[in-house]
Amino acid sequence: MADETLASLAAKIRAREISPVEATEACLARIESVGPKLHAFLQVDADAAIRTARIREAEVKAGRSRGPLHGVPLAHKDLFVWGGRAASCGTVVPEYFRVAEDATAVARLEAAGAITLGRLNMSELAIGPFGDNAHHGDVETPWRAGHCAGGSSSGSGAAVAAGLAYGALGTDTGGSIRLPAACCGVVGLKATYGRVSRAGGMALSWSMDHVGPLTRTVRDAAILLGVIAGADPRDATASARPVPDYVAGLDRPIAGLRVGVPDRYYGDGLDDAVRAAVTRAVETLRALGAEVVECAIPDPAIQNDLAGVIARSESAAIHARMVRESPHALQPAVRARLEVGFQVSAHDYLQAMRLRARVARVFVEEVFAQVDVLATPTIPEPAPALAAAKAGAAEEIVRRMNRFSRLTRPFNALGLPALSVPCGFSGDGRPIGLQLVGRPFDEATVLRAGHAYEQAAGWWRQHPPLT
Amino acid sequence: MADETLASLAAKIRAREISPVEATEACLARIESVGPKLHAFLQVDADAAIRTARIREAEVKAGRSRGPLHGVPLAHKDLFVWGGRAASCGTVVPEYFRVAEDATAVARLEAAGAITLGRLNMSELAIGPFGDNAHHGDVETPWRAGHCAGGSSSGSGAAVAAGLAYGALGTDTGGSIRLPAACCGVVGLKATYGRVSRAGGMALSWSMDHVGPLTRTVRDAAILLGVIAGADPRDATASARPVPDYVAGLDRPIAGLRVGVPDRYYGDGLDDAVRAAVTRAVETLRALGAEVVECAIPDPAIQNDLAGVIARSESAAIHARMVRESPHALQPAVRARLEVGFQVSAHDYLQAMRLRARVARVFVEEVFAQVDVLATPTIPEPAPALAAAKAGAAEEIVRRMNRFSRLTRPFNALGLPALSVPCGFSGDGRPIGLQLVGRPFDEATVLRAGHAYEQAAGWWRQHPPLT
Repeated sequence: MADETLASLAAKIRAREISPVEATEACLARIESVGPKLHAFLQVDADAAIRTARIREAEVKAGRSRGPLHGVPLAHKDLFVWGGRAASCGTVVPEYFRVAEDATAVARLEAAGAITLGRLNMSELAIGPFGDNAHHGDVETPWRAGHCAGGSSSGSGAAVAAGLAYGALGTDTGGSIRLPAACCGVVGLKATYGRVSRAGGMALSWSMDHVGPLTRTVRDAAILLGVIAGADPRDATASARPVPDYVAGLDRPIAGLRVGVPDRYYGDGLDDAVRAAVTRAVETLRALGAEVVECAIPDPAIQNDLAGVIARSESAAIHARMVRESPHALQPAVRARLEVGFQVSAHDYLQAMRLRARVARVFVEEVFAQVDVLATPTIPEPAPALAAAKAGAAEEIVRRMNRFSRLTRPFNALGLPALSVPCGFSGDGRPIGLQLVGRPFDEATVLRAGHAYEQAAGWWRQHPPLT
Repeated sequence: MADETLASLAAKIRAREISPVEATEACLARIESVGPKLHAFLQVDADAAIRTARIREAEVKAGRSRGPLHGVPLAHKDLFVWGGRAASCGTVVPEYFRVAEDATAVARLEAAGAITLGRLNMSELAIGPFGDNAHHGDVETPWRAGHCAGGSSSGSGAAVAAGLAYGALGTDTGGSIRLPAACCGVVGLKATYGRVSRAGGMALSWSMDHVGPLTRTVRDAAILLGVIAGADPRDATASARPVPDYVAGLDRPIAGLRVGVPDRYYGDGLDDAVRAAVTRAVETLRALGAEVVECAIPDPAIQNDLAGVIARSESAAIHARMVRESPHALQPAVRARLEVGFQVSAHDYLQAMRLRARVARVFVEEVFAQVDVLATPTIPEPAPALAAAKAGAAEEIVRRMNRFSRLTRPFNALGLPALSVPCGFSGDGRPIGLQLVGRPFDEATVLRAGHAYEQAAGWWRQHPPLT
């Protein structure tokens, strides 16, 4: 059953070839055998999952389906509230994040038939692109022992890659869905800002936070996005635009699609294996009929600076009480990253917000006049060793964090849909990610390009060397 | 013709008892005789006004009407762009504020038939509640020589009070419509945040700026609000809620209307004449059948503090370039007030924004469960002498500014509709204003209460002692 994708499992459950209980038990067994080594789960709700699976199984036998995820086991980053319980948000401060109602995205997945297996590990307060967590254990990529799963949705990446769940929700403020997807060799999708409700999830930087899926394939991501996207009275930023059928158009050929390769994105410090893999991926897209265009893009360093000012300001405002009351409960680098936020002036924050709006408008007008999709690396190097990621003083770690997320963070400032798809491995077997970016609310095109590449390249058929 | 209100003039124009040209010429004559002493106008567009008046007159004769303001002469605060010309915003920096299209509010008034006489003086950059302006002359209240017109829409207050125009647009970020209305003995209305488009007007603090009318009577304000209110694609904050007929319900009796007198609003430093006049006004409302309720309200000092942090931050961001490039072109107190904005931290700004939203929700829930309309003074003392308002060092002036606007500013933080209506005079003949505040988007009730009081009290029938 470890060979199934979310889509194939859901189809086999519908066809009564696999039962929801079988699928759930297989995940739970794998969580028990492989999970502890990866530190992917913070909490496994085995009994509840089995109970729900039995109900879904009875429903299948009675010819009933709750939706496209009927009987499919999922797990989620532990910054969503569900089942009436607080979320740890990766901290050890008890009862830190609690809201009255379950997270909208989780509730929609369950309403579509999904079974929730438990709560996944994450970087503390969703701060940190490597996935280490001094309180709950460092999450490892299943592809190479002692190496980072990527963060902050570290448990989501590792759990999906290791076959502990068929999909997982993550959140992405600077790359926190796409970075673990790339480090763990799975698919991660940050849709357009406003496409998915954030209600019931911890906020880190409300003008850049996104909720989205990590899955084994692009088709799986399209299925989950279709379930969680759409307006929500509990999140005023959730767009009322109609949600298209993201799966229906996936198999349309990409002949003629204009794929842009940014002229300055492959700048300093890009690892050779990453450069080679992404270049090959672009060639694959060209072989599929895409028109590859080298294109000038506005300086990503500026977008990163804006994102930094905004994220620091908003996260300091959100977590001020925690930093004041429980500073020593936080990891030093997390505290250091939060504390710089108190030094930002309102003037700088507001200018960054104003400039961001202008930069985003210009970016869309200029770049997407030339191309339909932009192709970049997701990570500048394959997952580093955990020891190397954690070494040094807090300030040094913060700088390292910013460097590792520099290719994803611009699209949080810009609010554009961005997908990470596996595109090969380093010589020592660490995954590499291709990032595809599209026009606002044009997730369909991004998914179509990603799916075409994925199916042609076939990396998704490989499994990590876990026993 | 000086006895007419906007409503009666419009009716007489429709009935062909007064012609638009007569009305316009009478205003222009009065601007020439009385205007210079008051410093109300920055620019008079006499020729253009007469030309337009002739067209409106021909239309009347042909039985055509463009709308409720057909042939009525108005004038506006010089921070709106119209006629394709930049606005001075009360500064001497040339071409400071220019946008591509005319201000929506001005364009709507003209589309409804109004004739625009010219541009009105104002406090520099709309900063300052007294109405003095070192560049363009201090605007005086027509009621007493050498005393403030109130600001920042100083010219709007003085022009309407002196009969130089039948109505005027102003803007209100901390009281800038209501304060000059009170100091000049006219009506000023700041509607709910989002009720009137700000497009084409200079921004001072975008989350607290409001555009609204100053007029001789409440009925006149209702007519102008009905014309300028409503959605605008050029201002994303302009609400799409339908605009009710504000005039239709004006004469409904107020029997049973619950009028709240805040328990702590009449605190330290309220002038005796103001206290007595507002107390009498509340008694008049009671005599009209209103149920007067003393009610507890959340501390206005907190709302003032929040408004201060937000306004300082936003205005510093908006005017940063000007302060940097032309610091010495600004009056010292205006520069001082802008410069403190650069010291606010993003954390303080964002916490103020978050707290403001909560305070506003609690205020509406608690206060408007007890009452339908809140009655307070508009100004804590009658218009001070201009010399006294301007005396002292910049920092001292800034403190004085904050004290004078402390009764109006809370309702900018809260975004609630607030109307100032004349409610009497000090012993030496300076006007006093009653402020009526209502539920979000319930301008109709505020106007109805204001109209009932105004008609019973009759202050509006008095004219300032100008020759």
